[in-house]
Amino acid sequence: MSQDSGRASHDPDRAQRAAGDAVTVTVEVTPPYPVRIGAGVLAEAADRLPPGRVALISDAHVDPLHGDGVAEALASAGRSVERMVVPAGEDSKSVATWDGLLRRLARAGFGRDDAVLALGGGVVGDLAGFVAAGYMRGVPLLQAPTSLLAMADAAIGGKTGLNLPEGKNLVGAFWQPRAVLMDVRTLRTLPPAVFADGSVEVFKHGLLADPELADAVLDGRLAQDASDAALTRWVAASARVKAVVVARDEREASGARATLNLGHTLAHALETSSGHALGHGEAVAWGLLYAAHLSRLHHDARGEAWQDWSEAARRLIRRVRPRGPGVDDWDALAPFLARDKKARAGRRRWVTMPAPGAARLCDDVPPEREREAWDAFIADVRTTSLETEGVER
Amino acid sequence: MSQDSGRASHDPDRAQRAAGDAVTVTVEVTPPYPVRIGAGVLAEAADRLPPGRVALISDAHVDPLHGDGVAEALASAGRSVERMVVPAGEDSKSVATWDGLLRRLARAGFGRDDAVLALGGGVVGDLAGFVAAGYMRGVPLLQAPTSLLAMADAAIGGKTGLNLPEGKNLVGAFWQPRAVLMDVRTLRTLPPAVFADGSVEVFKHGLLADPELADAVLDGRLAQDASDAALTRWVAASARVKAVVVARDEREASGARATLNLGHTLAHALETSSGHALGHGEAVAWGLLYAAHLSRLHHDARGEAWQDWSEAARRLIRRVRPRGPGVDDWDALAPFLARDKKARAGRRRWVTMPAPGAARLCDDVPPEREREAWDAFIADVRTTSLETEGVER
Repeated sequence: MSQDSGRASHDPDRAQRAAGDAVTVTVEVTPPYPVRIGAGVLAEAADRLPPGRVALISDAHVDPLHGDGVAEALASAGRSVERMVVPAGEDSKSVATWDGLLRRLARAGFGRDDAVLALGGGVVGDLAGFVAAGYMRGVPLLQAPTSLLAMADAAIGGKTGLNLPEGKNLVGAFWQPRAVLMDVRTLRTLPPAVFADGSVEVFKHGLLADPELADAVLDGRLAQDASDAALTRWVAASARVKAVVVARDEREASGARATLNLGHTLAHALETSSGHALGHGEAVAWGLLYAAHLSRLHHDARGEAWQDWSEAARRLIRRVRPRGPGVDDWDALAPFLARDKKARAGRRRWVTMPAPGAARLCDDVPPEREREAWDAFIADVRTTSLETEGVER
Repeated sequence: MSQDSGRASHDPDRAQRAAGDAVTVTVEVTPPYPVRIGAGVLAEAADRLPPGRVALISDAHVDPLHGDGVAEALASAGRSVERMVVPAGEDSKSVATWDGLLRRLARAGFGRDDAVLALGGGVVGDLAGFVAAGYMRGVPLLQAPTSLLAMADAAIGGKTGLNLPEGKNLVGAFWQPRAVLMDVRTLRTLPPAVFADGSVEVFKHGLLADPELADAVLDGRLAQDASDAALTRWVAASARVKAVVVARDEREASGARATLNLGHTLAHALETSSGHALGHGEAVAWGLLYAAHLSRLHHDARGEAWQDWSEAARRLIRRVRPRGPGVDDWDALAPFLARDKKARAGRRRWVTMPAPGAARLCDDVPPEREREAWDAFIADVRTTSLETEGVER
């Protein structure tokens, strides 16, 4: 992974519109691609795509905020733009919506060298990404995440996908974008609770590999300093952690990439059992607290070294204030844990982290340890839910 | 590409059921995979897949002929098999059928290490292949083509896909199988006209790189000697040509793989303009005749060396006896040529072949040459349609 600062465009007109302090994080897959982070980097969209038409896919929340600006920047670079707006929300990650977008591309006569630009949060990125992956067996894709959650997580790494009625993300493809544009100005349009949800994935990256980044979430610097420079710094730090892991394991073939799922096995089960009333960031916050307890108990029982990081997880929860996990009976949750994609030959696999920076994939956690960690977790849920720091929902 | 003869299985029971004279053609992509050609190679299915469950996807024509045999071989190797049968015919290559299969996999609890086995012709291979490509972002796939057309063409190379109402194969992915099993015994259940259609792609491979293979189609050896040894020989020869080209250009990034589309630009337009009344093999036979005229005229006009191979194309047509192309007005056909996936920036691209073995992708064929070749083609259509050699339809 390399990094440089400065402008990417050599067109003085367009470069002027982009901020001078943008940062590039390179994702070293084949071929490598840049993640541009800064204020105004959306203006670079045309420079980051091969010549041709652009399908600008967004949703009904994001399009009114940022759609016109991106469309105008593309048009002024001489691009023909086809705008496609889907309803906001998880329901758009469906086979039906995907089919509709593909048919619109076909009717508009899009070819293999025309491109898809995904402008929005994780839903738009996953949906439009899978449109790009599937249309004519793959067309160029630009990811332009507009939420902190999508910047920290979904926009880097090439995962695209749809939900089935039977479960989330059961259909999809790995399809790497040509570039990712993270315009930190879009973060200022987020409601505080949505920003807080995104900060959970930023914190997770800090916990995995960047202690100062984790501290910036916990001590409130991320939430309170909304300057271009501060946002660019922390978003870039988070992107760097993810880019390194993705480059080590592009298609989730080794266990390396699975460590990004720290906290996610429980989080997915909580999301599903709540009927998706609980947001992803909220669920992962609880998932991290559970992972802290499970890591301590599992590695202690095996006589291995460990360092308790549950206080960091509790501080995260006090700051983010997720709604409650909605279930306190382990047996009631078990069916929702059964369909985890990490499972192999029917065996549940957990990401544990005996100490910050040392995450690993474990398939030898005995059921009694899972339950013991759940009891410790539920005791913590009762305590931390009474505290009052953090965002309003 | 390497080649060896002999058994692949070390299980004496299962190996006994497979023929001793099977041939292996290796497709040298990353990772490489074997194409097994011979009588009885379907019995090897379990050996060619990782341990786990198998979704056996077939259609209503093929399943009654070969489904039980394959399912029993898998079951006797200890595999749990989920059989899924779709209606026979092109209409099954739809988003709706694909969605239904994915949901069945999800309801059956299939995981990432479980596999899909595509048993059937090109429709089943494309459909089930795209199921394997998309389920949980990709699961192991075995291709078991049962028609000559699918053996010669679709089953090697990893192309999978669906049709949209707007056009054929507009959605899909490159997803390489773990192995391809070409059991030549299945060819004996094909009606003669269907076998003849498949022989058109075999002939095309001969024309591209194997003169003796082309001759075997034209002089009737392929159609008339239905012994295991003869079928294995010619199917393997055809597979070798395709495997070499695929290994040079796995994702159609260079022009190499496009040469396999010799005759196909016109063929696709004829298929579409006929409302798919004309079969793929029939359409490609006409497409090859057109390509012969276009190649001669184009390279002659450019002052380049050429060798007329139109007589070979006429001999193919006399033997295969395709139904007529159904259109004699170039202007009426033009709209159907417009949506070719090879087109770049609105320019039509043709595969020409100035002499057998020298196919190339051309984007400089002027419209008047296309029309001139069409006139020569139509004159030939009128003559060859009067001849009477070949199969009955």
